[in-house]
Amino acid sequence: MIEEKENIQFELTHELIEQVEMLVANSDDKALKLLLNDFHYADVAEILDELDLDDSIYVIKLLDSETTSDILTELDEDTREKVLENLSAKEIAEEVEELDTDDAADIIAELPEERQAEVISRIEDDEHRDEITELLTYDDDTAGSLMAKELVKVYETWTVAGCLRRIRGQAKEVTRVHSIYVVDKEEKLIGRLSLKDLIVAKSEQKIADIAKENVDFVNVADDVEDVAKVMAKYDLEAIPVVDNLQTLLGRITIDDIVDVLKEEADKDYQLAAGITQGVEADDSIIELTRARLPWLFLGLVGGVGAFLIMEGFQNTFEKYAVLFFFTPLIAAMAGNVGVQSSAIIVQGLANDDVKGSINSRLIKEMLLAALNGTILALFLFLFVWATKGEFYTALAISVSLIAVIIVAGLIGTFVPLFLDKRGIDPAIATGPFITTSNDIFGILIYFWIAKLILNI
Amino acid sequence: MIEEKENIQFELTHELIEQVEMLVANSDDKALKLLLNDFHYADVAEILDELDLDDSIYVIKLLDSETTSDILTELDEDTREKVLENLSAKEIAEEVEELDTDDAADIIAELPEERQAEVISRIEDDEHRDEITELLTYDDDTAGSLMAKELVKVYETWTVAGCLRRIRGQAKEVTRVHSIYVVDKEEKLIGRLSLKDLIVAKSEQKIADIAKENVDFVNVADDVEDVAKVMAKYDLEAIPVVDNLQTLLGRITIDDIVDVLKEEADKDYQLAAGITQGVEADDSIIELTRARLPWLFLGLVGGVGAFLIMEGFQNTFEKYAVLFFFTPLIAAMAGNVGVQSSAIIVQGLANDDVKGSINSRLIKEMLLAALNGTILALFLFLFVWATKGEFYTALAISVSLIAVIIVAGLIGTFVPLFLDKRGIDPAIATGPFITTSNDIFGILIYFWIAKLILNI
Repeated sequence: MIEEKENIQFELTHELIEQVEMLVANSDDKALKLLLNDFHYADVAEILDELDLDDSIYVIKLLDSETTSDILTELDEDTREKVLENLSAKEIAEEVEELDTDDAADIIAELPEERQAEVISRIEDDEHRDEITELLTYDDDTAGSLMAKELVKVYETWTVAGCLRRIRGQAKEVTRVHSIYVVDKEEKLIGRLSLKDLIVAKSEQKIADIAKENVDFVNVADDVEDVAKVMAKYDLEAIPVVDNLQTLLGRITIDDIVDVLKEEADKDYQLAAGITQGVEADDSIIELTRARLPWLFLGLVGGVGAFLIMEGFQNTFEKYAVLFFFTPLIAAMAGNVGVQSSAIIVQGLANDDVKGSINSRLIKEMLLAALNGTILALFLFLFVWATKGEFYTALAISVSLIAVIIVAGLIGTFVPLFLDKRGIDPAIATGPFITTSNDIFGILIYFWIAKLILNI
Repeated sequence: MIEEKENIQFELTHELIEQVEMLVANSDDKALKLLLNDFHYADVAEILDELDLDDSIYVIKLLDSETTSDILTELDEDTREKVLENLSAKEIAEEVEELDTDDAADIIAELPEERQAEVISRIEDDEHRDEITELLTYDDDTAGSLMAKELVKVYETWTVAGCLRRIRGQAKEVTRVHSIYVVDKEEKLIGRLSLKDLIVAKSEQKIADIAKENVDFVNVADDVEDVAKVMAKYDLEAIPVVDNLQTLLGRITIDDIVDVLKEEADKDYQLAAGITQGVEADDSIIELTRARLPWLFLGLVGGVGAFLIMEGFQNTFEKYAVLFFFTPLIAAMAGNVGVQSSAIIVQGLANDDVKGSINSRLIKEMLLAALNGTILALFLFLFVWATKGEFYTALAISVSLIAVIIVAGLIGTFVPLFLDKRGIDPAIATGPFITTSNDIFGILIYFWIAKLILNI
């Protein structure tokens, strides 16, 4: 019987962590096994992330390697690194034997280079060792780095009955059978089948007759983000990976793509917020400082730039002190508009939504900024005129605001498009980079236009 | 034979669109069918999104409903709305008959209410109609709104052989068989099986003996974001949906979750950039203005607030004009720090990474901000002292900067945590909301502390 769960989610409570800590302290192995076997390995990993290193290692050494290998893959990178440092090459090799090739290669890739060779040499299964060694040769961020060697492969010449017989063998090693890939005698991918097709077919039919020839695939050197786009767009749950000769090398499954999409989204979000990618709320103050300080320093330099500009206009504006009081407003609007327009472009580029030329994009943004700017400037004009009673000051500030917003929108649109054309990740263009440059340009344009209008 | 594709991605070229437009203009139906049948329906949808409405409708009416129903699900919401307006209730019903219940319900839900009933009444298959009607009753953002009724279900009392026979029937209607769900005679979910388990088992075995009792499931009323978290964490490709009595109602597949994750990431990114969710680069200027102007208006109000504060300090600082030239710097730093700390908290909350109390979080952020602030203030102090030669002015500005950064960090940390506790999406806290309030607080604190230090 299924237990009634109130919540769909496992909850990591203080009580649970204390309970595990106490069982470890008392070396109550039996109770510990009983307790932890009830949880999914991803949940056990969450518990271990919270324990002291010694306690985590105690638990890892206690549980059998079939479970602990899965737990290892789910640990926080920091915790995993420390745990692996405390395991021998032989122990790591044993864990790795239990894993699919892609997870195994990921764990080995995190080890220092000299240990990698040692661990690989300790893997007893020759085929598993060779496959992991192959996977380690592919570059990060390519399809090869994401694929697993485990898949179900049949030859076009087989019959359905023969195929089912052989699949019973192959499938035991493959966690999930999404598609059965059909190859010719040179191992080239020529089609696919679903298990369903096979079950529905007659047992004497030839594979070549029931295989679907229309099979999506990616090249081993393709970028993972492109693989993610293809799989998301076509709703694929697995995609085969081939080399330039169309030889079937492995397959990528959707769960890995879900992770890629999450990482990509997190990275873009952090860049937009001015944080160097990859930190988490629970990282140390030093790590967080390293991720945040450079961007703040950029802001500091921008602020000094704004200071120098304002100082330059100091004498001109002795009688217009009020202009200086609006600089935070001007800087804020320039920054906000810049972030908005760059964010829309960055997201459009990521989703392949940005069609047409850079010029038409810039014209559209200019019209948009002019419209928004005029509406906002009208409010500002009325406010300044009503409170200060100076028509020309109000006019100067409002007209400058429109100009600032248009320029900010153009910069926000142009920079990510330009970066993208040059092959640089446009996501770095949002956030502090745009706000800082727009602050400076905005304040410069503001004083310059105000000076023109007030005829100083 | 598989065609050699150079790119893994379909490319939407001007030439292709012109070719389609020409074929439509010439009513060359044969060539049009031949051309479009070569593409995946998701690619055809991309082509149609680019055509004039009349041309799109021409193509939709030309192709058979098996293809067009899939194309409909992939169209941009705007295009789909217009296309559906131009189809009769009977035509829509025919499209919907071809779709899985979840996609069918999604399309019907987009219709005006009076049309919904009309289309539903035209669906000929009674079971399909009842299932769609059921799906339409579930609230948006719940598991029910995402699930499909199509699944493969077996009773615990069946044998493997009987099961395989019956599955041949059920499976034909189910696009992808992830898991086979085992129910008791009251239709309650009690376990699961994979097709693989079934193929590997002996034909006389009872389902009850080979079923895995440990099956993850979600309640029909669960939030879709929670469903996404569970499926991502446990690497699930499908999850069954049950009601409070554990009755099996449907299943959710990972491709829908990929869409949820993408939408969620896009929404958070847009909120952080000050854009009301859901606009795209190719939306009209009016739509983009509606999404952007409110946030800019918030910035305008903040800027007016900053103006009022600075005006209030005007007389106090007649001899310290230099202080005013640093307000853009102060505002920028307050904004940047606020966005950084709120982004880390928002992301941590989304990933369930934020552990511990609000107080410990605030203390950590205070230390972090103090460290960053001190380093930045040191540079600023040296710059002001070196260029202006006024020790106390330099000291006042730098010490204020530290205070401003600490307060900005605390606000950035506290606000999303507070919103989250109150059940409000913390993502609205990043972006213009935080930068605007931090601008105002920052400038106020800056002048106030400078006044204290300069002893005016």
